[in-house]
Parts: sequence; structure tokens; C-alpha cells
Amino acid sequence: MKVAFGVDIGGTKIKFGAFSQEGRLLEKWSETTDLSDSGRKILPDVSRQIREYIKIKNIREEDITGIGLGIPGPVDKTGFVKICVNLHWKEFNPVTELKHFFPNVRIAAENDANVAALGEYYRGAGRNCESMMLITLGTGVGGGIIMNGKVICGAHGLAGEIGHIDSGMSEIEKCNCGNTGCIDQFASATGIVRIMKSLLTESGDAGENNIMTKFTARDVCMLAKKGDVLANRCIDICMGALGKGLACFSHAFDPEVFVIGGGVARAGELITNAIKRSYNEKLFLIDKGADIKLAQLGNDAGITGACMLVLNGD
Amino acid sequence: MKVAFGVDIGGTKIKFGAFSQEGRLLEKWSETTDLSDSGRKILPDVSRQIREYIKIKNIREEDITGIGLGIPGPVDKTGFVKICVNLHWKEFNPVTELKHFFPNVRIAAENDANVAALGEYYRGAGRNCESMMLITLGTGVGGGIIMNGKVICGAHGLAGEIGHIDSGMSEIEKCNCGNTGCIDQFASATGIVRIMKSLLTESGDAGENNIMTKFTARDVCMLAKKGDVLANRCIDICMGALGKGLACFSHAFDPEVFVIGGGVARAGELITNAIKRSYNEKLFLIDKGADIKLAQLGNDAGITGACMLVLNGD
Repeated sequence: MKVAFGVDIGGTKIKFGAFSQEGRLLEKWSETTDLSDSGRKILPDVSRQIREYIKIKNIREEDITGIGLGIPGPVDKTGFVKICVNLHWKEFNPVTELKHFFPNVRIAAENDANVAALGEYYRGAGRNCESMMLITLGTGVGGGIIMNGKVICGAHGLAGEIGHIDSGMSEIEKCNCGNTGCIDQFASATGIVRIMKSLLTESGDAGENNIMTKFTARDVCMLAKKGDVLANRCIDICMGALGKGLACFSHAFDPEVFVIGGGVARAGELITNAIKRSYNEKLFLIDKGADIKLAQLGNDAGITGACMLVLNGD
Repeated sequence: MKVAFGVDIGGTKIKFGAFSQEGRLLEKWSETTDLSDSGRKILPDVSRQIREYIKIKNIREEDITGIGLGIPGPVDKTGFVKICVNLHWKEFNPVTELKHFFPNVRIAAENDANVAALGEYYRGAGRNCESMMLITLGTGVGGGIIMNGKVICGAHGLAGEIGHIDSGMSEIEKCNCGNTGCIDQFASATGIVRIMKSLLTESGDAGENNIMTKFTARDVCMLAKKGDVLANRCIDICMGALGKGLACFSHAFDPEVFVIGGGVARAGELITNAIKRSYNEKLFLIDKGADIKLAQLGNDAGITGACMLVLNGD
């Protein structure tokens, strides 16, 4: 039996997926990331895990058709990583490195957000589309872009940093990036908490209701679903900013579908409906814009997309 | 001798280019577009022109390797044009139509802005790049996008309408598209005149200097080059809006180069320098952003790119 591996290397955990030649997930597991020795133990660990798996499953090394890696930082076309803070890597090529362990196996690496986008594209909410943008709403807003069936890496391996496009919202507070009004300042989990706090302060509720000084984006979403007016206004503002940004992308790139993933997207239609309202308001020229869908693969998007790097030649 | 043709069909003129197999322009000419009979005479005219050319040049029909068409409207992958106002076409496929005249010749069609982008990409300011965005500053702001060496057409054939992304500028006046603050409202020739008028009104110069009630973007650029403070402020505002927009694209798509074309770009470095100032101010994350260059092919971009449709398989 032939097998391909998708490996999603994070700063805390390394996720592994073994896939059939058709891209079906056979098995998945994870182990803790060992960051010691400037992250030099990571790839030997990856190698060991894969060797153990094929040993248990009685698979010969020549039946490994490929190993794809998702890396939490910019990766150039050769697999070279200039810097990856989360893995303590500097001037390091994980593809070359892993080749030492598997000289005859096809190995590829790509940024983790791009890899997640590939996963959703081939196996998730972007199936049967030619162009897709994945927007991940987590602590920050990130994403990955597929056009004409290929990941857009960008000239510096930085494409997909869509959190830092201008939302067109008036904003005084500065974003981490130094600009103001970035989508990230609104549509991220951090942004939701920030806006909710300012709404509470405005409304005078912040002092009265002390429980509300410490809350998460998830709390805001739950409140909104229960019909809380302020929480709903917060979601409208935050996802409104994103909707406006997505309309810009539709005007410029006209993708078939926007796939919304990440922790915040777990609130489901509360999120996508708010995005759609503002998107449709801002959209022009295109009778029917892009679909706006929830991501489908959850935490498996990374391993799935990483495997697609070697199964589909991306 | 084998020859390929690039044909740029506009509402006023049809431009023709005969190219060698290496994409070298051998000869170019144009004729007036005959819009009668719902534009049904256009393709017979194209056919006649090409036949006359090959007859004069003693080229056999089997030595035509391809004919590429640039169309002033959205074109889908099969060449189908749902509507093209400028050519009076509706539900019409120029590829199928031209095939009747040249059944054994490779024929392809693409939107004219995308085709111009392809021209600059292969033969102009985008040579040796993998990703490029062409921004044309004319009456409006348009453009074409190349990523991974391919034109981005978009799901509805509308990609490249970058004039209508949000500039992040505060603006009350509505754009033609219904939104406010679009790049088009600033960086187009129309936008430059609009902003200059409002600056003149603000400064109280509008009444005194009656000659300034009727002027073009070109006049503003010439004044700016002569050192006029208000005209320079106008260019800074207008190209500043574009620079901010391009920074957004760099964050999201990280292209290698932005190529600035169209009538307004004839003012040269006055324009690119103003764009660069605001672009660099808004850029973050990327040490070195994209190059911002002037287009090189002028009016030949269309015929060149149209020919590349059939020479390069795009």
C-alpha cells in the first residue's frame, strides 16, 4: 500500500496525517514540538514518527509517495525558511533537511496558512472551485489564497496576510503592524474583545457589570446568539469590517468562494451572516459575488493541505 | 514563415499586430471598428484584415499559429462574452465566431486589461517576474493581474477591477459604483481633476483664476512638474490613495511588481514617486515591498498580450 504524509508543524504540536494516494485520511496523530537546540530536533522527530508508523503498518519506505510540511512562517519556493520565530528556525531549509532522512521521497514545504487553504480547497469548503480565499479568524486574521488551482505564495512568501488590509473603518487605535483600520483590528478574536469593551464603555455597562471586564470572543458570540443587543452590534461591526475587505477582494480578484475558518468561525452562521450583510452592501459590478462559506476541515486542514503539496504537485 | 496575430478590439479602433513565433512584433496597423449590425461585422473585418496581410506577405494560412483577441469587457474561459457594451455584443462568443473563418487556427480571447497585463508581463515592465499587477490610470482605474505566470480572470471574468477597492481615504462624494472612497475616485484622470477642483475651491483660487475651471489631469501633472504647490498636493492625495491600495495588495498577494500604465502614467516619475511615498508608508511586514514601475509598451501592450494568449497557452 502506498502512503503520503501531511505534517503540520506548529510551535506547540506537530500534527501528522497518513493519507491514501487518493488523499483519504487513513490515520492522524500528534506529538509535542521539541524546540530545544534551535528547533533542530523537529525534523529528526518528524522522521522518527513516520518511520515508526510505516514499521507498525508494514509499509516499505519506497511506498511513501511524499511528505508535505506546513510551516508557521514564510517559506520560499525551494522550501527555504529565512526565519520562523515559532520554531526557532533561522536560515533553514526543512525540505533539504528531511531529504537526509528520506532521500528518495518527494518532500515539499509551504506556509501553514497556505497549506490549510490547500486542504480546504481540495477536500473542504473549496472543493470544485478554481479560486478560493481562506480567511482564518483566530488571535489574528490570516489566510491563504488559491487562484487558478495554485497557492499564491507571493514574491516574498508573504501572500495571504489579509488581516492587514485596510477595512475602510475609521479607527484611531494602532494595529500591531503600525497602520490603523486593519481588518485584524476588528475581525480577530482580539478585535472582537476590543470592540466589545469599547461598546461596553460607551454604553456605561462596563463598570456595573464587572464580569464583563474579562471575557473572550467566544463569550461575545454566545451572548450575541442569545440576542444581546450590544454583542450583536459588536459582531456586526467586526464582521462588517471583514465583509468590506472581502468585497475589495471580489472587485480585484473575483474569487469563487471565501472560506471562513479559525476559532472565531466556530460561532458559525452568526459570523458568516454578519460578513455577508456587509459584503453584499459593498459589492458592486458583480451580480452574484463569491460564496461565503464556513471551513469544513477544522484542525485537519493543515495535514490535509500539507499532504496535497506532494499528491498534487502544488 | 510562421506568424501569430494579436488583435486588440476597442470600441473605436481595432489594433492588429503580426508577431514572429518568438513574440517579436513584425508589423502593426489599425482600422476603425464597425459597430453596425450589433457589432456582427467586427470579426469578419478581423478575418479580412488578417487574410489581406498574409496575402501581401505571401504567408500560407497553415502558417498562422494563432490569433489572440483582446475584448473590452468580461470574457469567460471559453471566450464567451455575456455583454460587451462597447462592441454592442450580447451573448456572443468571438472565439467560435472567428473559428468559422480560420477553422484550423488556434484562437483565444481575453479581457483587454488582462491582455495588456500579459503584454507587459512577457515583453514590458513585468519581464522576468512571476507575479505582477498592471494598474491602468485612464478615465477610470483598471488593471490586470498575473499570478504564478497566469492571468487571474476571476470566477465571473471580472478580476482586475482594482479601481473599486477602498482607498481608506475619507470621502463623502459617491463613486460611480455606489461606494465611497474607491481608488478610482482619486487616481483616475477624472479623480485628479475632481481633487484639484476641490483644492482650488478650498484655497479660494477657483474664482480668481477662471482658466482653472476647465482643465485636464494632464494639465495638473504639468503644473505639478513646474512646482505648483496645489497641483503637487493634488498628485500626492490622488496617488497616495493608490499607494495605500497597493500596500493592501502587497499584504494580501505580495506581487513582485506593480506596473503603472494608462494616460496618467505618461507623467512618469511624478506619478510613480508619489505612489511609492504612500506605499512605503503603509507597507509593513515586508522588508522590501514590490517594485513600482512605469509600463513600457504603451499602446502596444494590448496587441502584444493578445498574441501571447496563443503563443504561450495562457
